[in-house]
Amino acid sequence: MTLYRRFLISFFLILTALSAQLKAQEKRLFTLEELIPGGKEYARFSPRIPARYQWYGNRLMVTENDSVWEIADPAGKSRKERLLTFAAITAAPGLEQQQVNRLSFPQEGGAVAILHTTDGIATYDPENKRVLAFFTYPEQSAGHDLSPSGRQLAYTKENNLFWQDSEGREHAVTADCDKGIVSGQPVHRNEFGIQKGIFWSPDGNRMAFYRMDERMVSGYPLVDASERVSETKPEKYPMAGMTSHEVTIGIHDTRNGETIFLKTGEPAEQYLTNIAWSPGGESLYVAHLNRSQDTMQLKRYNSMTGEMERTLFEETNPKYVEPENPVLFVTGRDDRFIWQSKRNGYNHLYLYDTRGRMLKQLTDGSWEVTEVIGFDAKGANLFFLSTLSSPIERHICSVNLKSGKITQHTTVPGMHTAQLSPSGRYLIDRYTAHDNPGQIDLLDTRTGKSTCLAAAADPFVRYAMPSVTAGTLKAADGVTDLYYRLVKPADFNPAKKYPVAVYVYGGPHSQMVNNRWRYGSGGWETYMAQKGYLVFVMDNRGTSYRGLAFEQATYRRLGTAEAEDQMKGVEFLRSLPFVDSESMGIHGWSYGGFMTINMLLRYPDVFKVGVAGGPVIDWKYYEVMYGERYMDTPQENPEGYAESSLLNRAGNLQARLLIIHGDEDPTVVMQHTLQFLKASIKAGTHPDLFIYPGHGHNMIGPDRVHLHAHITRYFEDFIHRDKP
Amino acid sequence: MTLYRRFLISFFLILTALSAQLKAQEKRLFTLEELIPGGKEYARFSPRIPARYQWYGNRLMVTENDSVWEIADPAGKSRKERLLTFAAITAAPGLEQQQVNRLSFPQEGGAVAILHTTDGIATYDPENKRVLAFFTYPEQSAGHDLSPSGRQLAYTKENNLFWQDSEGREHAVTADCDKGIVSGQPVHRNEFGIQKGIFWSPDGNRMAFYRMDERMVSGYPLVDASERVSETKPEKYPMAGMTSHEVTIGIHDTRNGETIFLKTGEPAEQYLTNIAWSPGGESLYVAHLNRSQDTMQLKRYNSMTGEMERTLFEETNPKYVEPENPVLFVTGRDDRFIWQSKRNGYNHLYLYDTRGRMLKQLTDGSWEVTEVIGFDAKGANLFFLSTLSSPIERHICSVNLKSGKITQHTTVPGMHTAQLSPSGRYLIDRYTAHDNPGQIDLLDTRTGKSTCLAAAADPFVRYAMPSVTAGTLKAADGVTDLYYRLVKPADFNPAKKYPVAVYVYGGPHSQMVNNRWRYGSGGWETYMAQKGYLVFVMDNRGTSYRGLAFEQATYRRLGTAEAEDQMKGVEFLRSLPFVDSESMGIHGWSYGGFMTINMLLRYPDVFKVGVAGGPVIDWKYYEVMYGERYMDTPQENPEGYAESSLLNRAGNLQARLLIIHGDEDPTVVMQHTLQFLKASIKAGTHPDLFIYPGHGHNMIGPDRVHLHAHITRYFEDFIHRDKP
Repeated sequence: MTLYRRFLISFFLILTALSAQLKAQEKRLFTLEELIPGGKEYARFSPRIPARYQWYGNRLMVTENDSVWEIADPAGKSRKERLLTFAAITAAPGLEQQQVNRLSFPQEGGAVAILHTTDGIATYDPENKRVLAFFTYPEQSAGHDLSPSGRQLAYTKENNLFWQDSEGREHAVTADCDKGIVSGQPVHRNEFGIQKGIFWSPDGNRMAFYRMDERMVSGYPLVDASERVSETKPEKYPMAGMTSHEVTIGIHDTRNGETIFLKTGEPAEQYLTNIAWSPGGESLYVAHLNRSQDTMQLKRYNSMTGEMERTLFEETNPKYVEPENPVLFVTGRDDRFIWQSKRNGYNHLYLYDTRGRMLKQLTDGSWEVTEVIGFDAKGANLFFLSTLSSPIERHICSVNLKSGKITQHTTVPGMHTAQLSPSGRYLIDRYTAHDNPGQIDLLDTRTGKSTCLAAAADPFVRYAMPSVTAGTLKAADGVTDLYYRLVKPADFNPAKKYPVAVYVYGGPHSQMVNNRWRYGSGGWETYMAQKGYLVFVMDNRGTSYRGLAFEQATYRRLGTAEAEDQMKGVEFLRSLPFVDSESMGIHGWSYGGFMTINMLLRYPDVFKVGVAGGPVIDWKYYEVMYGERYMDTPQENPEGYAESSLLNRAGNLQARLLIIHGDEDPTVVMQHTLQFLKASIKAGTHPDLFIYPGHGHNMIGPDRVHLHAHITRYFEDFIHRDKP
Repeated sequence: MTLYRRFLISFFLILTALSAQLKAQEKRLFTLEELIPGGKEYARFSPRIPARYQWYGNRLMVTENDSVWEIADPAGKSRKERLLTFAAITAAPGLEQQQVNRLSFPQEGGAVAILHTTDGIATYDPENKRVLAFFTYPEQSAGHDLSPSGRQLAYTKENNLFWQDSEGREHAVTADCDKGIVSGQPVHRNEFGIQKGIFWSPDGNRMAFYRMDERMVSGYPLVDASERVSETKPEKYPMAGMTSHEVTIGIHDTRNGETIFLKTGEPAEQYLTNIAWSPGGESLYVAHLNRSQDTMQLKRYNSMTGEMERTLFEETNPKYVEPENPVLFVTGRDDRFIWQSKRNGYNHLYLYDTRGRMLKQLTDGSWEVTEVIGFDAKGANLFFLSTLSSPIERHICSVNLKSGKITQHTTVPGMHTAQLSPSGRYLIDRYTAHDNPGQIDLLDTRTGKSTCLAAAADPFVRYAMPSVTAGTLKAADGVTDLYYRLVKPADFNPAKKYPVAVYVYGGPHSQMVNNRWRYGSGGWETYMAQKGYLVFVMDNRGTSYRGLAFEQATYRRLGTAEAEDQMKGVEFLRSLPFVDSESMGIHGWSYGGFMTINMLLRYPDVFKVGVAGGPVIDWKYYEVMYGERYMDTPQENPEGYAESSLLNRAGNLQARLLIIHGDEDPTVVMQHTLQFLKASIKAGTHPDLFIYPGHGHNMIGPDRVHLHAHITRYFEDFIHRDKP
């Protein structure tokens, strides 16, 4: 009790979630089909607002029931006026037999709507109700990217890059027979914020694109056993410390068909990240990162010649630098841009000129800018999301570039996202909070007035909801607050003893616990609570949005600080009088799979059950970019790799451990699990196994329901069993 | 009780095995390391006779403690005289640094011994203590085959065939760059009795060899994940109904380096089986079998020209013909040979002349010749093993070719094997029986007198041995006797109720229950009995040595009759007052893995636990030769394939089922298990899984101990659990 009280005192916030108004037994029971994405009933039971709000110029539009309405007076009574219907659009010449799946207004696109249809993409003039252009997607094409002018569509087919003109003619940009040369696709395995491989120039006449030579990278043989004759699908997979691919950046001019390449120089094994065009199109900005990832150089290239014009500045860090956001030019200025950096320990905004001089640090403090939204029309204020008021919330803020004054526009607690009207006056403010399944407000930045546009209903009103509370406890370093959530069965009785399921992720770029709907507690947690479990989730050091020191606490020793912190969570749980300390299990996926096994092997007497999905077993089998950022290479850090490898601890297994893997996982390859099985067999220990054939790193679709039934069954099989 | 009595009346034989002389609790407990092959202590606990008896001409020799002794007077006192020692051999010039692993006297080799040494093979003259020739095995070589003259060694390296002369020079017979053309190796996936791919002519100057073109066969991608960079090892795997390989037979003359090919003709997709040279070397006999396997033609080829000289005779069967034994020429006659055939329902011996005329059926009756041993010196009597006196025993018999008189030489019940002295007078008779761990007698065929040469000790004298009994029960057809064994715990108490582990194989070419040591009961059965289980094993219809009708009862419907018969076993078990019918499990490997899952899905309420290893799931994923023999092609027999497929029944799974597979299994490829998992996931059922990385169709070495610990744990986990 004393230990429990000590923890209670340290709570940062204790919030009780939804209180069940009716008694549990009067309510319906959940099924996994309702709770798990991919389940037959899931769509009905996922909180949602069946309306899509967006800006059309400065006009507020909503798409509902296949019509687009203008909301002239959000607070007024007769507030909506129909602009157009999908049916009318597809009646227009050129779109016969198409169905509109989604309509969007490009932020800077003038009087044009973009239509995503059954077979392609169209530009549409809503005023004159006229199809401007329609591009059908060629077979096997991917990565479709419409040019800003709307007159060209770029895409890839297999390893090559193409574009289509508005008459439907296809033009090849590259024609490499060797599948090891890949153009127009994301590179560097999607690290460093890379999500695409095609970058149109502002005028839409040229496109920059990634070209990746991965012929020298060893392949991992994924096997597709779904056909009678099984086939190998080799996945080029550069593993930590081994030869990586080589990337260059081309610029193709659609007017004359010519392609130049940026002279990005040596060493070829560098990371070319965060591509951005200058507003006038004369320059391309690229953040160079060396393979060691300790030095970033922002370089400007001449987009016509490919010559490197200037290294604007350099950022270094003894552990690693991780640029994830390209330069953002100040609206109306072609000589000033915003740069995001964690150089002072937290992610903040810096104003630079194009000669590389830092003009001003715009934000500062022990909080982070988490996302930049954009500028107002005059480029006077920059809007962004941040953790300014709490690490587990996101609020819409803005900074005045001249005065440096920061304004927090949202006050309602929760996780906010924003769409800014071009003028910069209004915000569509979409948010959830632990007690709010979802809401959309219109926010007037001038008056601060908020008007509710729509709110999601709680889909579980007829159910006995488990309660979710959040709180903090101290990390193993004794000073850092860690956030957790605790889910309790709907009919929770503090006089009873409950088994516990710890759900863990624990790796970089994550935050499991924050002030979103039910503190982020997912369907499986609800299901486990219904089965009579407490569920506990905590973000250990190494996770995100808490600053660089917090994140880098795990550097070169992945799994050590994380496990120590998770043990603090275990101590907390053990201190709770209603916890059955003899019946604790742990489950996680990917990094969380690593953490699950890691916990079982480092602290063999704590958990009775573990379920690890797609687990990293040894970082030397993981990819170069992510792996070397946190661990350096196996050659440079042999002790760290040995310390973090689960292979060396396989003999410690005492708990029941189920490992689950997709046999076509291209991210954490099956080799991890196979090697762990081999090590366990050799050590005489007995993990269990399940494979989802044909699945990648995550099980999606209906099989995800089966997965969670399987995980749950494993807990039920062994959580109350005595160890042998 | 009545049902039990009814079964009792039908018993063919009831034999009680070893009675435990001491009380169970006074004895030691078994460990899997003692009971399972690959276990650290297994060698000490496997019954064995550390002496190797063989004929050296008509002299009886024994190899013991690295010395070879002659036994001049087996019954006498001072019976042994040392002929040579391994140490003396390796002291001879030419064998320095070699260690002799095995010494054998070739049956017709004159005064020569064959030595298998550390790095190669040698011929040795024991009289003059002189090494005649020594062939070192080249790196990566396999399939070593010494010529009858001892002057050449043939072998394969990768896909090509070579031979080495006695001066150590290597000569290439084939030099195909394409790995899809394979020479000198066994073909047709080792069916039809094929165990090798090189066949020396009697004079040792020429060699016949198989050449297999499998370029047109689809490959199964086995993945070796043991190295950092995982690799695919594609296995050419022709699946039922798909394109198969094409085989031809070459004859290479080592004197002039020339190779001819037999004109084996079309269709290329035929089976060329049972290669045999004529005694004079002028002809080669080949049993041709069509792909449908319903017609066998025995053909004679001219070995110099490759021309087909004569089709001697043809055998057909509406289901299948399965030739497994080449022609055997009568000693001293080059115009007469023995042919084995099941044409009248049981495997018997037929005397033919080389024009293809059947001269005499030598054996007949509802029993089988199981193995031919050989002729006496005059070719008057042919010795063989048979089921003459019991289907679960093997006795040494002979038939006089002239009179047709059959003599059974062994009378001691059990499973006998034989080595005949060249004269034909003496037999080394090696046998075991349920109550005899192994014995070697010298048998005088003239007097019938038997002299014990050596006997194996019971390695388990200090242990409380479970009892093993054998008996019969009626098959589902109501008339056929099926043999079973039943293992009971050492401290068996008929007033108690025991859980049951059924061990099953059930497929062709097998006999699990016969009168060998402990009726063939293996280490895992002993271990399970120690854990308090009854273990039951029964040979259903479809298994071997019971005649063609018994074997072919499963034709085109694998899994149906077998399952019906196994259910008779279940009914028998249920009738036993000491069986806990609610706690029955089943385990099997390969065909037995198929049977295990088959039983769980056809009779979902019978077993609580099943463990299936390397299971066939759908015969369409199994290989051409075996698959089409029993099932025809999927195109010809779609209903049969559908009926036998476990994919279609995956939704019936109620029991706890653990599937185990080696991820490099080249026989029953992983696709079977992966497809079953997929079908189960779709059907919402939950099998469990384990994989042995790097293992093929069977787990061998120390991992086999882990395997049996894993299987046992699964039984223990769930045998007493209520179904959910």
